[in-house]
Amino acid sequence: MKKNRLEKKRSKTPILCVVGSSNSGKTNLVEELIKELSKKGYQVGSIKHTHHKFEPDRPGKDSWRHRKAGSKISMICSRRAFAIFSDWEQELSVEEIGSRFFHDVDLILVEGYKNSRYPKIVVAGKNRWDPTQWNNVKAMVSNQTQKTEVVVFKPREIKKIVQYFEEEILA
Amino acid sequence: MKKNRLEKKRSKTPILCVVGSSNSGKTNLVEELIKELSKKGYQVGSIKHTHHKFEPDRPGKDSWRHRKAGSKISMICSRRAFAIFSDWEQELSVEEIGSRFFHDVDLILVEGYKNSRYPKIVVAGKNRWDPTQWNNVKAMVSNQTQKTEVVVFKPREIKKIVQYFEEEILA
Repeated sequence: MKKNRLEKKRSKTPILCVVGSSNSGKTNLVEELIKELSKKGYQVGSIKHTHHKFEPDRPGKDSWRHRKAGSKISMICSRRAFAIFSDWEQELSVEEIGSRFFHDVDLILVEGYKNSRYPKIVVAGKNRWDPTQWNNVKAMVSNQTQKTEVVVFKPREIKKIVQYFEEEILA
Repeated sequence: MKKNRLEKKRSKTPILCVVGSSNSGKTNLVEELIKELSKKGYQVGSIKHTHHKFEPDRPGKDSWRHRKAGSKISMICSRRAFAIFSDWEQELSVEEIGSRFFHDVDLILVEGYKNSRYPKIVVAGKNRWDPTQWNNVKAMVSNQTQKTEVVVFKPREIKKIVQYFEEEILA
């Protein structure tokens, strides 16, 4: 695995959000982008941002019991894998998450977080889409003709999207 | 919440392992220790160490799909809580885990990891127990009379165990 494709160590890890309505294909696109970026040698980190109230751990598990007893950060690990669970005392920005938890990654893909200021790809699915709806939109993914000033890719044009991403955001 | 009960910032976060055979009551003890330490103002982090092959995330979830596509660190977060999932490229020691992921905690309780060199409390349950079996055993928790040179606590003597822990390991 080629590490550190980015020539110099950045002070900030580049961030790209993939946004769109429910069932527009965001997770599919994120999966394909991760695969293609990884194939090119990037170390990719990813975040799924959700507005739902959610329990990150499985109730009843030992790590869940630790957290419910008051553990601020609860981890379960084996020799192969780990998971870390925590409640925010104060929600961190993606940059702060990056510097705290995402060591050694070249970039962070975020699924969701549409109201953030980070650069975005909009997955329009079958919908028409208003390009002024969100801030800092760089591109759109759609099978439809779209009236927009940003570049539009077809969902299958993964290599092109990655190339655009490299030029616009990683460069 | 009283933060930083420890007078000076340590270079290393203190670690205590709670070990014992399956169903000896390790998780119960860890829960009670976390509650008591938290009540005293400590910021506690915890680790459940397992030898089982395990899948840290739930198959099918978006964060799981990101990781399976190649994401090195996959996170799911809301405004309230987060979870981070990863496969180790190289397993880290508890100290390394502490400095990477457990920011702002005063101590780390580990459930399991009996073959480590960290200080340990053995939960003997109803079993007799050989004190030479593991390295760096500081105390035992048992309802039985035990032939041992280390201090023995009853499972309900949580305040006493915490006090001993403060004097022996946190002091």
